[in-house]
Parts: sequence; structure tokens; C-alpha cells
Amino acid sequence: MSFELTTKYLEEINERLESGALDTVVDELQELHAADVAEILDELKLDNVKAILAKFDEEQRADILVELDEDSRAKVLKEASGKDIAETLVDNLDSDDAADIIGELSDEQKKEVFTHIEDREQAKEIASLLTHAEDTAGALMATELIQVNENWTVLSSVKEMRKQAEDVDQVHAVYVVDDEGVLKGSLSLKKLLTTSTKTPIREIYNTKIQSVKTNTPEEDVAILMSKYDLFVIPVTDEMGKLLGRITLDDVVDVIKEEADRDYQLASGITEDVEAADKLLPLTRARLPWLVIGLFGGLIAAIVISTNEGKIAIIPKLAFFMPLIAAMGGNVGVQSSAIIVQALANKSFSGTILNKLTKELLIGLINGLICSVLLLGASTLLGYSLKLALTVSVALFCIIIFASLFGTFIPLALNRFKIDPAVATGPFITTLNDILGLSIYFYISKLIFAF
Amino acid sequence: MSFELTTKYLEEINERLESGALDTVVDELQELHAADVAEILDELKLDNVKAILAKFDEEQRADILVELDEDSRAKVLKEASGKDIAETLVDNLDSDDAADIIGELSDEQKKEVFTHIEDREQAKEIASLLTHAEDTAGALMATELIQVNENWTVLSSVKEMRKQAEDVDQVHAVYVVDDEGVLKGSLSLKKLLTTSTKTPIREIYNTKIQSVKTNTPEEDVAILMSKYDLFVIPVTDEMGKLLGRITLDDVVDVIKEEADRDYQLASGITEDVEAADKLLPLTRARLPWLVIGLFGGLIAAIVISTNEGKIAIIPKLAFFMPLIAAMGGNVGVQSSAIIVQALANKSFSGTILNKLTKELLIGLINGLICSVLLLGASTLLGYSLKLALTVSVALFCIIIFASLFGTFIPLALNRFKIDPAVATGPFITTLNDILGLSIYFYISKLIFAF
Repeated sequence: MSFELTTKYLEEINERLESGALDTVVDELQELHAADVAEILDELKLDNVKAILAKFDEEQRADILVELDEDSRAKVLKEASGKDIAETLVDNLDSDDAADIIGELSDEQKKEVFTHIEDREQAKEIASLLTHAEDTAGALMATELIQVNENWTVLSSVKEMRKQAEDVDQVHAVYVVDDEGVLKGSLSLKKLLTTSTKTPIREIYNTKIQSVKTNTPEEDVAILMSKYDLFVIPVTDEMGKLLGRITLDDVVDVIKEEADRDYQLASGITEDVEAADKLLPLTRARLPWLVIGLFGGLIAAIVISTNEGKIAIIPKLAFFMPLIAAMGGNVGVQSSAIIVQALANKSFSGTILNKLTKELLIGLINGLICSVLLLGASTLLGYSLKLALTVSVALFCIIIFASLFGTFIPLALNRFKIDPAVATGPFITTLNDILGLSIYFYISKLIFAF
Repeated sequence: MSFELTTKYLEEINERLESGALDTVVDELQELHAADVAEILDELKLDNVKAILAKFDEEQRADILVELDEDSRAKVLKEASGKDIAETLVDNLDSDDAADIIGELSDEQKKEVFTHIEDREQAKEIASLLTHAEDTAGALMATELIQVNENWTVLSSVKEMRKQAEDVDQVHAVYVVDDEGVLKGSLSLKKLLTTSTKTPIREIYNTKIQSVKTNTPEEDVAILMSKYDLFVIPVTDEMGKLLGRITLDDVVDVIKEEADRDYQLASGITEDVEAADKLLPLTRARLPWLVIGLFGGLIAAIVISTNEGKIAIIPKLAFFMPLIAAMGGNVGVQSSAIIVQALANKSFSGTILNKLTKELLIGLINGLICSVLLLGASTLLGYSLKLALTVSVALFCIIIFASLFGTFIPLALNRFKIDPAVATGPFITTLNDILGLSIYFYISKLIFAF
């Protein structure tokens, strides 16, 4: 039932457009969901995109514009008049989507759009949505909602709701406010329909209601909504005045973006990029960690050079350097990943000491198993007992050390309000490389009595 | 407005429970959301959990049970009678939640629960939910839904809907089916309320509707619902018969679990674990990759030992081995992460050759920058030009090679239906360590003319 864009279908569309069959292509696209049309348009030439969009009616065009990639949308809207943009977007989209798109325009275009929004109340609402900081509840919310006054009766509320519902596509919840517009609670439709029409609202509404403030970080909104299984949450200002609502579909995007970002940070990619992005951002996103890794490697080279004498006496010591460095990195990443995740999901309970103790125990078990394996393997490979012992004992120490380190660093970063996700990946790896080598040479000194 | 569990509050609760103040603690917990109560109970002793749960009414108890950790829930329900479980769960929960909990019980308990479900129709529904494979739409869906027949009139539909709505907590959508129960479309409440009561449903329902089959993988359900911004999606059997529906809140859990799993795989953790898990699963989840890393390190040692002669002549060659090994790993992980993400989000477009070309270009740019930096740094550190050249040229080659490798491996795994997420993390790192060292020694041979 679901549409999947294939390279073949795209080629076919392009061929048909080139042979002038615009109308039949548009007829076909009319049958698809706006999100699917946008997926196709993202891959077409600008002229074709504009020609196709012109064939859709205003409402469909607005829906497709919302779904386009930011880059494609910027190109399409670049030469559009403020009047066109205002007419297409404002009446056909929820305020949050309209504000998102208007927010992407140049200052000049923005101004022009605002002068062409006929309903001045609507213009004000959209302008105020644009003032909220990125990544906050205010930037996610839409202002369309159904609200009734706690002092009204059921009858007058139903009348008023009918009027408000005209501007609202989908009714997610009915909110109750006081005379100042302060959010007091919510009203279930069931209750409204089964209560006598003369009953005052204040007697039947539900006062236990979760809400967020405009400056609540979007991650916190996501955690709240998914914890309490909410489909919609109201947003208020600092005084509790009801300003808008956030629906779960918008929060799903937040959750996915955040997961993608954490995964990329753990993989040493510092900017938010996608496989489809251009060469330069993709390159730039990766360079910082490579340079850090490079300098880490140079420090490792210095550590080794100070131990050149030991390698000169026992050259075989050098054979195990990559193993030692790699294992420290692996263990450190594993330990930090668990902590980073617990912190991100706010499922972190217990004290730091607790965590460190647990990691210490895991390190002891895994360290012991790996060391025994390494002792056996290196003996089998014909290395001397002294060398095999050095490598195994060093590995044991490094696994324990890296476990503790991998636990402690993200916790410490978090305490200083730095995103702990930067701790995993190359940072921990590089640090553990250097530390691992230092420990290795120190233990070789003890065992070989240099 | 949101509840956050602190260690201090937990201690206070424990103290109060020990001093016999059970009732005041329960009074306080009554004010909280079931999800918050569950969060607290997860941390208390079993006896206290049982005592507290006994004070809640049946409906609240059911809501709290759903929210408990699987471990805590297993302990609480271990000695509960089948009758108690049936009475608490079946009437107070949606079928999907009831089925999830019953599915966790022992076979014996399961049987006992089913004999005590009074409504045999309900028992059958829950039993059939248990037959669906894990991680499919069937295992996610609930059977509570509102459906009307396309041959009914608006009037008879509204009457029938009232009856059905009694069993349904929240009305997400009204589905239209034919006489065989096959899903034909959906009905908007607005339309229903604004159309003459004698109109047949077949004239007013919306036929463009997304649905999934019971065996659709849950990841595909998540992608579909988030792409089309759906709050609810109907589930049918192979013949198109309407069986249930999945709501977005359940899909949010799927998205989060999957993101967590991918992040863990990338960090070298093979089982689904949390920071709060016990020692043994945490240890076991990490060991496989450590052992792989260990044997990778041993192979690296063998690669180095075959080049012992070169190190004997130029011992300083050994200094840069960890740098070379680490950089190959870093670049490989970066490249594979982007591909793994594109595959997971099904946002992968274009051919493999395209991707490889792009990665080749990124590798060329980053490789060039890093090599020049390394050439400068190692010259500054006083190494000979020949050594500095060897290291820089090797780094350049390795960055390009690792870029291509990191792109190709996840694509190849995906083609063979293996989860490409296993490709990132330790696997790519280990492989690139070994390859990097081989390239390094080969280039040293060319430059020093051994």
C-alpha cells in the first residue's frame, strides 16, 4: 500500500516530462500523498518542479511544500512573490508549518509575506511563533486549538467549540482556561456529550493535565510525551497562559533527529548531515574528529618514542601496540555508550559511585576473560612467557581502566552541561589509545625489569 | 509540571514505608501518573511493591503494571493467581497491553488466565494477538476500534458507533468495512456530523487510506506512520480484513528502541541492555566484540611481526603504528555510519557507484588535509623526511581505502539481508586496523626501498 520511489520510476518521470507529457505526470502525482509527491519533486529539475507545482491547487501545493527538502523548498520559493507565499501557506497550513517555512525565507521576503497576510490576528500569531528559540516547545507548537472558559456552561461551550473547530483540521483535545486565558485543565468529549447542557464547565473538567512552557527544550517535550503516552500537549507562557499545543507527530521527528545526531556523534561526525547532502558539508562534518584523532596518534607516537629503548631491547613489544591501543578504545566506547543512553533517556538512576562499581565488576570479568584468552593465544603463537604475561596483564589493567574512564567522562561532561554524546566515539578512543600504551610500557618495565 | 524521581525522594519513601506509614505513601502516589508510580515501584523491595499495589483500585493497578519494568512485573505477577491477573488486566487495559503482559507469563499461568477471562470473545482476541510474530504490526496492534459497514446509513452508523465506543477509551478513527469485514476506508467525524442522517456511508467515506498487514515489520510501520504523519493506522490480514489498529504512541517506543539498538551496535554492544540491567547480561553483551577486537589485534601483531626486519632497520616506523591503525578505524566508522543511517531511514537513493564516488571524493579531501597536517607535524617533531613522507602517504591511502570500505561493507551486508548496523563499530575498526598496518608497511617498503 505504501509508495516507494525507485530510480527506474524517476527516470520514467523525467523522460515523460522531457517529451512534454506534463499533464499526464501531474494526473499520476495527484493520486499520491503529498509526502510522496515531495519525495519525487526533490529529485527533479527546478523548472519541472515549478511547472508541476503550478498544476496543483493551493491546498495541495501547501502540503507538498511542507514536505519538500529544505534545499528544494528554498529554490522553489526563492523567486516567489510574498503575496503568493502568504496566500498559499497561511490559509492552508497549521500555524507551526507555516511559521517554519516563513522562517526559512530571506528577511526581505519575510517582510513582504507578512504584509500580505490578510487576517492580522493570524499574522501576529505566526510572527510570535517565529520569536521562539530553536529546539524549544515554542518553536514546535501550533496555535490552532479548541479552548473553552471554565465559567461557561456546556451549552455555550459546545456552540463556541463549533465556531473554533472551523479553523482547526483535527481536534486533538479541548482545553479549559480561566478569564485570563490561563490553562486550568482539559475536557473529555465524552463528558461534554453526556452532561446536562446547563452544567458549568468548572464542574466537569479534568484538572490533572501535563503541560510545557514555551522555553521547555524539545527533548524534554519528547521525553514527557512518550513517557505519558500523550498525543498532544498544551504549551503555556511563564504565567501559565495557554498559547498553543504540540502533537506527537512533530515530536516523532524530534526523537528521530536526536537519535540520528547521537549516532553520528558516536561515529565521529560533528554536524547534522545526511547521505544525500553535498560534498562540502559531509567533508567538514568529519574533519574535526579526524584531526583530533591525528593529534592523539602523534601523542601516542611520542609516548612510544620515550620507550624506544625498551623496543630496541625487545622489538616484539611493538607487535602488540595496536592491540593494546584498540582494546582500550573498544572498552571505553562500550562503557560510555551505556551511560550516554541512560542520560539521554533520563533513565539514569543511582549514584555515580554505584555506576563506577558496576563498571569495575564488568571490567574485571571481561578483562579476566580477554587476558586469559590473550595469554593462551600469544603462548600458542610462540611468544616468550614474559612477553605474553606483559601483554595479558597490561590488557587486564587497560580494560578495567577504560571501563571506569568510559563511565566517568560522560557523567562529568553531563554535570558541566556538555552533551555527553561527544564523549563516545573518537574522543574516548583517542584518549584510551594513549593511556593504554602508557600502561603497557609501564607494565613491561615491571615484568622485564628494564 | 513533570515528575522527576530523585535518590533523595526514594530514600524518604523507603524510610516512611519502614516506619509503617504505608497509607500516607499510597495517598501521595495516588496523585501521580501511573508511569511515575511505576518508576518508583521499580526501585522498591518486592514486599513493599505488593503492599502498595494492593491499595490501588483495579484500574489503577492495571495502568501501573503496564508501566513497570519487565523484571519488576515478572516478580509481582509470579505468585498472582490467574483469576486475579485476568480480572485486573483484561477489563482495564487495551487488548495490546493486556496481551503483552499475558505473553510474558509462564505457560501454566497463561492457561489459567485464559480460563478466567469471562468474555470469551475477548479471550479469543487476546489469544490471537499472542500468535503474531514479535516485531510485526500484529504484535503491536490493539483490537479495540470503531467500524461501520459501508452499506449502513449515517443514522444507523452513529447508533452503532455509540455502542462500540463504550469499549474504546479514545476514538482515533472510524473505519469503514464491507460485509466481509474487509477495510474499505475511513470516515471523518466532521463529515458524519454534517451529512443528512439518511445518506449511505458508501457515499461519504474516504477511500484513500494507508494500512499495514499483520506481518508488516514494525520498523516499516514506524517509517510509514512518521512519513505520513499518522496518529493511527489500521491493520488487516492478507485478505484485507480489518483486525486492529496501531497508535503512534506505540510506534514511538519502536523508534526509540531501534535507535538505542543501533547506537549500541555501533558501540560494540550486541544485546539490548540498559544501564539498570544486571551485571551478567551487561558483561555478556560486550564480550563478543571484545573477543573479535582481540583476535583482530593478534592478526595485527602477526602483520607487524612479518615486518620485524623493517622495524629493526628503522625503529621509528613503530612509533606511528597506533596512529595509522586508529585513523583507518575512525574514517571507516564515519563512512559506514552515514550509510547505515540512510538504510535505516529508507532515505537511501541513488546507486552504489554514486555513493562510492562521493565517498572517494570526501576521502580525497580529508585525506589530503590530514596528510599535509601530519607531514608538517612529524617534520616539526624532528623525524626524517623519508619517515614523515612514509607516514603521510600511508595515511592518505588509508583514509581513501577506509572511506570506500566503510561505504561498501554496510551496503553489501544489507544486500544479503544482514543488519548493516553490525558493520559499524568494532567490526570496521578492527578490519581497518589490520589493513591500515599492511598498507603502512607496504608504503614504507616503497619509500625506504627495503
